[in-house]
This record gives sequence, structure tokens and C-alpha cells, in this order.
Amino acid sequence: MQLGLIGLGRMGGNMAERLRAAGHEVVGYDPHAEASNVASLAELAAKLEAPRVVWVMVPAGGPTRDTVAELAGLLSSGDLVIDGGNSKFTDDQHNAALLAEHGIGYMDCGVSGGIWGRANGYGLMVGGDAEHVERAMPIFDALRPEGPREEGFAHAGPVGAGHYSKMVHNGIEYGLMQAYAEGYELLHAAPLVEDVPAVVKAWSRGTVVRSWLLDLLVRALDEDPELAELAGYVDDSGEGRWTVEEAINNSVPMPVISAALFARFSSRQDESPAMKAVAALRQQFGGHAVKRAT
Amino acid sequence: MQLGLIGLGRMGGNMAERLRAAGHEVVGYDPHAEASNVASLAELAAKLEAPRVVWVMVPAGGPTRDTVAELAGLLSSGDLVIDGGNSKFTDDQHNAALLAEHGIGYMDCGVSGGIWGRANGYGLMVGGDAEHVERAMPIFDALRPEGPREEGFAHAGPVGAGHYSKMVHNGIEYGLMQAYAEGYELLHAAPLVEDVPAVVKAWSRGTVVRSWLLDLLVRALDEDPELAELAGYVDDSGEGRWTVEEAINNSVPMPVISAALFARFSSRQDESPAMKAVAALRQQFGGHAVKRAT
Amino acid sequence: MQLGLIGLGRMGGNMAERLRAAGHEVVGYDPHAEASNVASLAELAAKLEAPRVVWVMVPAGGPTRDTVAELAGLLSSGDLVIDGGNSKFTDDQHNAALLAEHGIGYMDCGVSGGIWGRANGYGLMVGGDAEHVERAMPIFDALRPEGPREEGFAHAGPVGAGHYSKMVHNGIEYGLMQAYAEGYELLHAAPLVEDVPAVVKAWSRGTVVRSWLLDLLVRALDEDPELAELAGYVDDSGEGRWTVEEAINNSVPMPVISAALFARFSSRQDESPAMKAVAALRQQFGGHAVKRAT
Amino acid sequence: MQLGLIGLGRMGGNMAERLRAAGHEVVGYDPHAEASNVASLAELAAKLEAPRVVWVMVPAGGPTRDTVAELAGLLSSGDLVIDGGNSKFTDDQHNAALLAEHGIGYMDCGVSGGIWGRANGYGLMVGGDAEHVERAMPIFDALRPEGPREEGFAHAGPVGAGHYSKMVHNGIEYGLMQAYAEGYELLHAAPLVEDVPAVVKAWSRGTVVRSWLLDLLVRALDEDPELAELAGYVDDSGEGRWTVEEAINNSVPMPVISAALFARFSSRQDESPAMKAVAALRQQFGGHAVKRAT
Repeated sequence: MQLGLIGLGRMGGNMAERLRAAGHEVVGYDPHAEASNVASLAELAAKLEAPRVVWVMVPAGGPTRDTVAELAGLLSSGDLVIDGGNSKFTDDQHNAALLAEHGIGYMDCGVSGGIWGRANGYGLMVGGDAEHVERAMPIFDALRPEGPREEGFAHAGPVGAGHYSKMVHNGIEYGLMQAYAEGYELLHAAPLVEDVPAVVKAWSRGTVVRSWLLDLLVRALDEDPELAELAGYVDDSGEGRWTVEEAINNSVPMPVISAALFARFSSRQDESPAMKAVAALRQQFGGHAVKRAT
Repeated sequence: MQLGLIGLGRMGGNMAERLRAAGHEVVGYDPHAEASNVASLAELAAKLEAPRVVWVMVPAGGPTRDTVAELAGLLSSGDLVIDGGNSKFTDDQHNAALLAEHGIGYMDCGVSGGIWGRANGYGLMVGGDAEHVERAMPIFDALRPEGPREEGFAHAGPVGAGHYSKMVHNGIEYGLMQAYAEGYELLHAAPLVEDVPAVVKAWSRGTVVRSWLLDLLVRALDEDPELAELAGYVDDSGEGRWTVEEAINNSVPMPVISAALFARFSSRQDESPAMKAVAALRQQFGGHAVKRAT
Repeated sequence: MQLGLIGLGRMGGNMAERLRAAGHEVVGYDPHAEASNVASLAELAAKLEAPRVVWVMVPAGGPTRDTVAELAGLLSSGDLVIDGGNSKFTDDQHNAALLAEHGIGYMDCGVSGGIWGRANGYGLMVGGDAEHVERAMPIFDALRPEGPREEGFAHAGPVGAGHYSKMVHNGIEYGLMQAYAEGYELLHAAPLVEDVPAVVKAWSRGTVVRSWLLDLLVRALDEDPELAELAGYVDDSGEGRWTVEEAINNSVPMPVISAALFARFSSRQDESPAMKAVAALRQQFGGHAVKRAT
Repeated sequence: MQLGLIGLGRMGGNMAERLRAAGHEVVGYDPHAEASNVASLAELAAKLEAPRVVWVMVPAGGPTRDTVAELAGLLSSGDLVIDGGNSKFTDDQHNAALLAEHGIGYMDCGVSGGIWGRANGYGLMVGGDAEHVERAMPIFDALRPEGPREEGFAHAGPVGAGHYSKMVHNGIEYGLMQAYAEGYELLHAAPLVEDVPAVVKAWSRGTVVRSWLLDLLVRALDEDPELAELAGYVDDSGEGRWTVEEAINNSVPMPVISAALFARFSSRQDESPAMKAVAALRQQFGGHAVKRAT
């Protein structure tokens, strides 16, 4: 089927390729990409046959909200917009309501798989009306991995449920990565294990901890056995924060995922005001030696 | 090759089957199992041709130490004992030294895979001398999963390194499980996602969080979509505790794995003295209502 | 000076008494309290001489916002409203803007001290304009504890800064209480210490951990040495949640205060969906025994 | 009464002064201190009248164990040794048994108060036999703060119980300090609060979080309002580690105190292998930018 695709970056560009390889017609738009098929959103709208399906794959927050707002003026009643970015679920209600004023449908779709999705397929979590889901199913089927549909695709609930599911997925991801990382550091620190990369690789098959993330850690250690080229500095892109906020809103204990989030915050601090305060207290009560700021 | 195998329980019994299916001759001993081929350790020793290889697969701690001690008196110089149980790595030095007095070799082998290992193969992490590893390699090759040897087997280092690696593996496992569990609880608690089992299943392929543990969670939710038949009571068998202790011994920050461990402790408490104390404090300073013990 | 005081509950009632004992004229209003001096907010406004100072001491959230909104219609330009409740700092900007439309000033004042404040005085953290702070200083001086003003009172910053400071104060409070509680539980669990209440009481003087909260724990253990009458069920009233949310918003690592918050969430769960999921996973991979729901 | 005091460092030296001011005769020994009254342990033993009481106040671990072992050969049946250092409780059984072979009594005494103890008195937690406690009570009474004995002294239980109590005290201390520190960092990071030291000082009286540690934080901020001269590098001296280990041994959930301990470990790392691993994983799956090691 025909699809408008806005955003041809790392994710959107790969998705366009996977969709075209599956026989779909993708009209791509990205002001920053040579691969753009049209020069403007207006041209995109003009080029698509109604009823249109337009997939938005731009950075979450302002860029996505602005794109949806602009589409509200360019598309027609009966068209359908899918936000496949990492938007916060609270944006979805807003976007859906705005488009509904123009008779335009809206779905949110959480997309997992990173740069590997073009080859492996993407895990998809969708929120919206059943009829919209049905209409876009050929697209979902092309994007998701081979195998039974339900192992790479879910209609999670109403508008917002797709991004909510993706948010939780990413929160889990934080916890999983930190668990592997802590184990890796202990193996690294303890003298008994002599070949840490070999041990990590030996977990690839048969073990309880085998996973795709483990495979990636093996890959990273193959390339750089001491991870010597990397700084221990870890960004975050929002979903982990939202997951913990939602845990708080729903009174759900979340010690592990929150600890993983806070470890990232710490990793980005050159100096910790909190630990300065602890050092100050130790000095005050015990006359303990402190390290001077340099 | 010929192998003596002590302990034919859930793990040992399955391993015996996998080894025999691979053409090895297994002489099994277990006082509690019908499948036992001999009636005593002495008979086991008598039945094996020297130089013997004996695999110990009994509960960690006292039972394993006692078995090794008894073997020290029954085996001969040149024989080789492999402890495949979940022993603490500190037991290995002791066991190796005891056997060395009799000229008997010792290796420790961490074995991962649970009840699925018979079919899938077991992930193996070995500690000991290179010559011992070489000698037992046919056994390791039969036990480990199909595929490249290094993806299911590692010679981690000297005696103790195998169990150390397995200990860390299990610590990671605690963190992974808790991460999935926290995400599951949030999906469960938040009203937006209507079909939690479908969302979890949709993570099976293509996503960043796909793993064998995730597959097992899918399986559990297929059998019981609300996990209604289970209590939220989680045992632990020691490796998680040792992992955190080792983190402390090596000054390794371990917020996630420790949080997973403490969540298990909490899950087993009918009543928390700590939370009684917090409730008491709130009542004292603020006159806040408390819940009376029943 | 003259003060209107809305809300004569556990906090407001005690504050009225302390203010009157200091020679101030308090006109109190509370529809649910016999001690109310007037029958309505309108009557309160009528009874106070302009320019009025009105202190709002009602539950945070809706009740406080509604009260401020009603005051906006009853007070006059030049009057001053102080919100002394546990409002979220984000409410303050809204309240201040609403009142400013009528020329009415606004301050937020975080108040700490609980039911002990009447006797000991209250710790006060104020947000607002310097001229407003100056005007209400006689009230603050009467409410705060004896001693240097700066040891019980701070002008923290602009509108919102008072409640923000109180929010952080309460977040710290969560962490402090949980620290004592965990230590108490360990003393309780370990067999070596025979007289736990005596040990806790011995920390009252001279030690590094002495504090007012410790004094209250001693008091609670004097009354009930085993805390046998209390359930380990701990409510929370919002400030701890907001503190962690603000930590997330500001990328501040907050492992301890968040752990204290999550411990409260756990304390209120009859059954943990997360720990059911962990139990399910252990059963799936290892055939480990589980506890059935009852 | 007469007391031998071994170790005249920061703690022992102050204690000697406090004891002498209370009228006790202290014979001090410290090979590194000018204030030493004798030149050797043998001379110390010779100078004291039997039955002797000797207080050991040297670094925990080897130095304390060695001192006790040497005393076993120098003292006589009926003498009494008190270890007032920060020894691990497991050392106490060993020390007591060693001395008992010579008919020498043993007590362990946890001492809290830091460099302020000389002026304020020390909080004391004692483990040992009631008759030994009784015998040394004049010493304890001189060391503890003014006021009721039970507010600065406890006989916690048998040998080891004093150090166990002190260990838990220090674990709590870790949690308390980290709670204040996290709150301080949030105040510091958030733009709304303009005068952080003033807010912290305003908590000194009347508030729920008032404590001696808070007073010390106020003092530190008075001296250096931005803590600009300190690095956020925090040592630990063992008791926090042992507290968490004991929590693990007794299945006590300890999320807060363990988080405080791990924050210290992190504060001392120039580079985190764990966070390198997380960065590597993000790069692998998402092509996310990483920071290169420098």
C-alpha cells in the first residue's frame, strides 16, 4: 500500500527501506535528507492518494507535535496519522484530539529494534482504534519481524497505549542493561576470572541470561575487550524518566529501573554535590581526611 | 568417554540423559534415585576405570563438601573430580586442596540452563587447570549447546573461576528478572494498556528487550494471564547474596542486583519490622493514622 | 498583629494557639471546627481590618486551590495570602497569579514540626517577595522556635521556593526514617543484640546518629518495645513523590530517597504483581517450587 | 579508677583527656604519640595495679587483634580488656576466647561521637558479661554524655553485641548522610531555591529533620557555602559494608543503607566499567553517540 513517511533519519530511513523491500510505496519527506521524495509536507499531502496514511518518525516532543499540527491543516477527513516516534503517551491524547477535529484518525506506535530493525524487523506496540489498526496492518506486517504476528506486534489499547508500552519496554531495557553492566564490572574487578570476554560470550547459548542485549555485549567486547575506547558516560532519552514517574503515579515499587536511571545521571556528573556533602559531614564529625577539589 | 555422575536430581538426571544421548557412558549414583546405577560411592569408584572422571551434581554447601571429602578417600591419584553444582567459589579452593593431597585433580563448573538444558544444552563456565579442562572436553562438548564452543563454554580461569562466573551470572539473572517484573507490574497497574500479555508477547521478536527470560514470561502469561495462581513469594538460593557480598568486597557499586535481592527478601516477609518503625515515627511526629497489627 | 487563619485542624489549631499565646489576634475559620470564630470566608474577610493577612492551612491540592480562588473574590488590593499547607510548588505560581489580578499578595510557607510545633515552634521556609516576608515577620517570629531567627526560618526565594524547600525537607525525612528503620530491623533480626530498645535509646546523646526522629523512635519503643501493635503499612502524602519527580526533572541521582518511597509503596501491597512475575520466571526456567496464591 | 589506655590518636587521646578530667588515672600507651606515659605494653602492664583494666583504642583489624594477642601474654588472670575500636563483631569472639585461656576478661565497646566526644561525651554500646560491665562502669560513666545513663550507654548483650550495635549505628549513619546529601543536591540543582545554605540552616530547630548531622551540615555550609573546596570523594571504613553483609546474612531488606554504601563506591571511581558497558550497549543497538575515553 501507499504510505507517507515523515523523517528519514536513522530509524525512518531504515524503515522506508524495509517497507519498500516488502513492496509498499513509500513517499518519504525529510528536509535534512537527500532521500526525501518531496520538498514539503504540503507536497507530501498532495502526492498521496486519499484516504492517506502518514507515518511520523521525527524526534519526540516539539518536533512531533509541530508535525502533527501541520498535518492537521494539510490532510483531509478520513486520513490516518501514525506517530512511530518515542513520544510521551500524554502527547498522544492531544495529537488525537487535534486531528479528530479535522476528521483525521490517529494511532501511536512504539517501535523497538534500533538500527537492526531493517534486517530483523521491528517490535511494534500500537494504541488506537481497531479499524485504524486494521487499515495499517499491511504496514505493520512489513515492519515487524518474520514469524507469528503476535510475537512482534500488539494492539495494546486505545490511543496512547502504544507509546505507554514502548515507554515501559525502554524502562525494562534500562534495568536489563544495568544488570549486565554490574555483573560485567564485578567480573572485571575480581581477580579470579581471567578471561572476562570469554565468560560473557559463553553465556550466549543455553544459559538463563542469554538475550539479544547479551549478544550485543559480546559484540562490543569482541571489538574492544576492555571497552577502553569508551567513557562511562550514559545519556538517556526520556522513556526511563517517564517510566519511573509513572511508577510513582501508580504507586508501583520500582527499585531496579530507578536505580538504573540514577546510575546514568551519576555517570554524567563531573562532580557530585551530594557526595561533597557527605564528605563534608565526615570531615565535620570525625575529622576524616577529605579530598580537595582540584 | 566414561563418567561417574553423582546426583541424579532435576539437574543431574537431565545431564545424564544428554550425555548418554551423545554416546558417553555415564555411571550414575544417587541414593534417592531409582536411576542410580550403583549402590554407593565406593561401588561407583570401583566400577569406573582409572583414571576416573567424576562429576558431582549435588546440593551446594555441606552435601557437596561431604561428597568431595568422601571421594578423596575412594579415588586414586590421577583421577579428576568436577563440581558442577552451585557451590560458593570459596569452597573450591578447599576442595581442590583436599583432593590434591591424594593426587586427584579438581575443576569447578558453573552450569546454567535449568530444566531446559537437556534439550537446549547447558551454558558452562569452568575453573581449573588447562590439562584438566582438555581431558573433560568431550563431556563439556556434549553438555553445551550446539554451535561454536565459545558461545556455550568458557575456561574462565583457575579453580574457583567457574563458580565465580556462575555466581555473577545468577546475580545478573536476579536483576534481569526484577527489571521485567517491575515493567510488568507497571503495565498491570496503569489503566491505559488493556492487554498486558499481548504486549509482553509482542516483545518476543525484534525488540531490544527480547531474551530467553522474556520468552519464559510469555509462556507463564500464556498459562495464567493474571498470574493468579502464584503468590508473590520468591526464594533465593545463595548466588545473589554472594554476588552482592563480592561487590562489597571489591568496592563495585551494585544498586540494581542488590535491589533485586532485597525485593526477594521483602517478598517473603509477612510483616516488616522496618516499616513498623517508619509507621511508628510518622505516628509520633505527625499524629498520622496507623494501621493496627491484626 | 491581626491574622485570619483558615483551617483549624491538627496543624492550624495548634498554630492558632501558639500565635495567640504570643499576643497576636487570630480570627480562625473552619467549617468543621467548633473553634471557628466566623461562619464563612466572607465573614472572615469582613472581620479583618485591611490590609489583611490571611493564612491558609487546609489540605493541599483542591481544597487549598479552591480556598485561594474564593479569597480572590473576597479580599482587597493590598491584602496578603499565605499558604502554609503542603501544597505542591507548582500550585503556588498559579495561586499567586490569580491573586495578583486583584492586587492581592501571595506567599508560600512550608511548615515543619508536626503536632510538636505548638510547644517547640515550627521550622518555616518561605517563598515570596521580600516586602511580604517583612510584613508577616511578626507571625513567623511567633511560629518559629525560640533562638536565632535563621535557625528556624528562611526566606528561600520567590513564590514557590518555600513549598519547594518543604518538599525536599520531607523527601529527606523519608530517607532518614528508612535508614533508622533498616538499622532497627537488622538489630531485631540478628541474635547477638539482646536489648534492642536499650541500644536505640543509648544513641540519644553523644552519638553521630542522634536526632529528633531518633528521640521519637525511642519514645515509640518505650511505649511498645516490639512495635507489636503496629502494622508495617506506611502511607505517604505526596512530598516524597514530588521530590523524586523533581530529582528526575533535574537529573539528580536520588537512590536513597527513592528507595524509601518505594519501600512505602511495597508496604501497602497485599500482593506484588512484580514478585509474582519473578516467581513465575523461576518456576519456568528451573522448575523451582512456588508458593500458590491462597 | 585506674585505666590503661592503648592508642592515643584522634579518638584515644580525646578520651584520655575526658577520663582524666573526670578524676580517673589513665596510663596511656602509644608508640607514635608524645603523650605516651610508658614505652611499651610490658611497661604498661607493669605500671597498672592488678586487677587491671586495659582499654584498647587502636585501628580495627590486625592492629587490634595483635594488641589483644600481646596483652594475653602480659596481663594476669582477673584483668579485663575492653576493645573500644571499630572492630568487626566477629573479631570479638576470637579475642574473648584467647584472653579467656589466661583468665582475662573481655568486653567490646562501640564508641560514637567522633572528635566532639571529648566535649559532649561519647555514645557507648557494650557487649560482655554483666560483672565486667559493672566493674568498668565508672569509666563508661565518665565517657558517656551528661544526663541519664541509658541515653548514652547500653549493655547490648554478650561479647560482640557492642560492636554489632556500633556497626548498625554506622550503617544508619551512612543512610542519614546520604539522605541529607540527596536533598542538598536537589536544592542545589533546582533553580527555585535561591539561598540553599539558609534553607538548610532553617531546618536546625523545630523541623522533623533536625539532628546533629544537620547541625554539622549547617556548619560546613557556613564555612564553605558551595562546598567548593571539597571533592565529592567519600571513603568508607568498613562498618557500612559489614552492615549490608549482615543484612544479607539475616535476609533483611536494606535498600537505603546499601544505596548509600554504593554511592560511596561510585564516588571513588574515576571511570565506571559498568557505565562503559551500558554506553557500549546503547551504541550497539541504537547507534547512539558515545563519549570517547580521553
